[in-house]
Amino acid sequence: MKKINIRTSHPYDVVIERGAVRKCGELIAEITSSRKAVIVTDDTVGGLYGETVLTSLRNSGFECDIFTFPHGEQSKCLSNLGDIFDFLCKCNITRSDILIALGGGVVGDITGFAAASFLRGIDFVQIPTTLLAQVDSSVGGKTAVNIKGGKNLVGAFKQPSLVICDSDTLKTLPRETLAEGMGECIKYGMIRDEKLFELMESHTLDTLDEIMDEMVYACVDIKRSVVENDEFDKGERMLLNFGHTLGHALEAWHNYTDYAHGYGVAAGMCMITDILAPDLSDRLKKCCEAYELPTGTDIPMSELLPFCKIDKKNEAKNINYIVCREIGKGEIVKVPFDEFCRLMEGK
Amino acid sequence: MKKINIRTSHPYDVVIERGAVRKCGELIAEITSSRKAVIVTDDTVGGLYGETVLTSLRNSGFECDIFTFPHGEQSKCLSNLGDIFDFLCKCNITRSDILIALGGGVVGDITGFAAASFLRGIDFVQIPTTLLAQVDSSVGGKTAVNIKGGKNLVGAFKQPSLVICDSDTLKTLPRETLAEGMGECIKYGMIRDEKLFELMESHTLDTLDEIMDEMVYACVDIKRSVVENDEFDKGERMLLNFGHTLGHALEAWHNYTDYAHGYGVAAGMCMITDILAPDLSDRLKKCCEAYELPTGTDIPMSELLPFCKIDKKNEAKNINYIVCREIGKGEIVKVPFDEFCRLMEGK
Repeated sequence: MKKINIRTSHPYDVVIERGAVRKCGELIAEITSSRKAVIVTDDTVGGLYGETVLTSLRNSGFECDIFTFPHGEQSKCLSNLGDIFDFLCKCNITRSDILIALGGGVVGDITGFAAASFLRGIDFVQIPTTLLAQVDSSVGGKTAVNIKGGKNLVGAFKQPSLVICDSDTLKTLPRETLAEGMGECIKYGMIRDEKLFELMESHTLDTLDEIMDEMVYACVDIKRSVVENDEFDKGERMLLNFGHTLGHALEAWHNYTDYAHGYGVAAGMCMITDILAPDLSDRLKKCCEAYELPTGTDIPMSELLPFCKIDKKNEAKNINYIVCREIGKGEIVKVPFDEFCRLMEGK
Repeated sequence: MKKINIRTSHPYDVVIERGAVRKCGELIAEITSSRKAVIVTDDTVGGLYGETVLTSLRNSGFECDIFTFPHGEQSKCLSNLGDIFDFLCKCNITRSDILIALGGGVVGDITGFAAASFLRGIDFVQIPTTLLAQVDSSVGGKTAVNIKGGKNLVGAFKQPSLVICDSDTLKTLPRETLAEGMGECIKYGMIRDEKLFELMESHTLDTLDEIMDEMVYACVDIKRSVVENDEFDKGERMLLNFGHTLGHALEAWHNYTDYAHGYGVAAGMCMITDILAPDLSDRLKKCCEAYELPTGTDIPMSELLPFCKIDKKNEAKNINYIVCREIGKGEIVKVPFDEFCRLMEGK
């Protein structure tokens, strides 16, 4: 078992271990004195691991219910959040009980926000079952739902009490979903860790399982160091947004349907690197291609830029973007939005 | 101008001054570098003070929009919260801009929660225009909305950046609404300050205006000391719940319609004092009567007790209630819920 301790305002462990889902009850029993829990999951993950998690929790003495909602981004909304709250009420969940997010980013984000706001805050555990959730969304305490105006525009900083990463769960992922997670992994290599990048570029999606635990560990450890320095996203944490400004714009252009977040990140990284650090462009694109990720888009930049404006990272007239001029060295650059547009349009 | 500095995790001032609403723009300009704001209010208060606040903010250089929703407890819900979020998006509010809650407890609570969660947190200012909001809900950082399962069951701890109390705004309050606020004021006297209690018992609702600023100051200062010691409601802050356990039950019994919170607090204080500190009962009831507050209820205790169970303060099988055996000295008592029921039913 590998363990990373995240020393934020509420410190917690990320456990990385194959098979951990089957013994999650024991792990969770160690971090709470309550023996009452609600699992929140979606219909896909619930069907695969719901019973395993429920059984493990009950074997560890938990009284436990499970709330299942339809999978997909459209469930990450205020109305589903309201349904979760109503379920928690029905189960008589009190401030000392615990929520468990079992699933990918959508489940983790909305369950985390539910935990942050129900009774003004109860504990929660993340059991991320996608690569993207394991290396990114489950760690660091960003929770959110989407609203009409955009993705993740409403949420809270709420650290989980424990994160359980079981890479065996990644074996049931569709190929595209696994690929998607690699968008974030490659990002970590680019912004902080050339060795990690080299490890990834020496493999492909087909041989990924061989390096999975090592890679997840390295990614989570980078996230740990960034988040510990900037829990509330006032500075350094923006580094994690490499590829995200254009990536979010791509997702938004597609109306947040049929364009995965990790694809956006990969395309966004390649596009900004193409323009601002062309020497690295080939190597980055090759690595993305090895994991079956897009390396650009046919959509004209002029159609994407308006979508860059709606981003939590932006102040009034400025935008913060990330550039890597060397592999392993991300930088935050703040410019007026107009200048960013000129740069991106190559003017 | 009287000022109380609240030293919570994010310190801020409560300004108490007649006429302060007319110069709120100046006061707000001192605490933010942004010059963009959204005022959230209801149709009643918006009609009375919306233009004044808007003008003052614009005169101080703010670009400012106003969001108005129907007055009343039924607006304190997730769907209205969603409408507020959509309005903030439409106004392109960024993390550095500011929200202003102009109104009573409903406006303050929902606007505070909107500020806590929009973009995972932006600053907000409270301009409470009811007595209850001035002495209680605007100070201390508890924000919330109601859900089907109960009142204030969803929210966040989010301290405002400034609270502006203008007792001139209390002059436009309906008599019952002013009375309602006195429920909380009498509570402060009971749990912490015999002198304050004496001040209040030497007046009536008709002469209240004479002591208003002094009383508001004393109440906010008690709230300050309790909140500073227990910002996140793990212990001492429960003191503020004197009268609230049965009070909330009364409100819930009435389905949160036509039974005001402050009435519930007054009746709840009198009922529990009747049972547990009968020596004080007459004096407390007389004071409540002077402010036209109820001192009990005809609803049988057996019908109220089930509603006491749904309360954020409760752990699994226990309940925390507050008793004052001397005026100015509240105590927190934790007992099994069954024992509380026996006590209340006089068994």
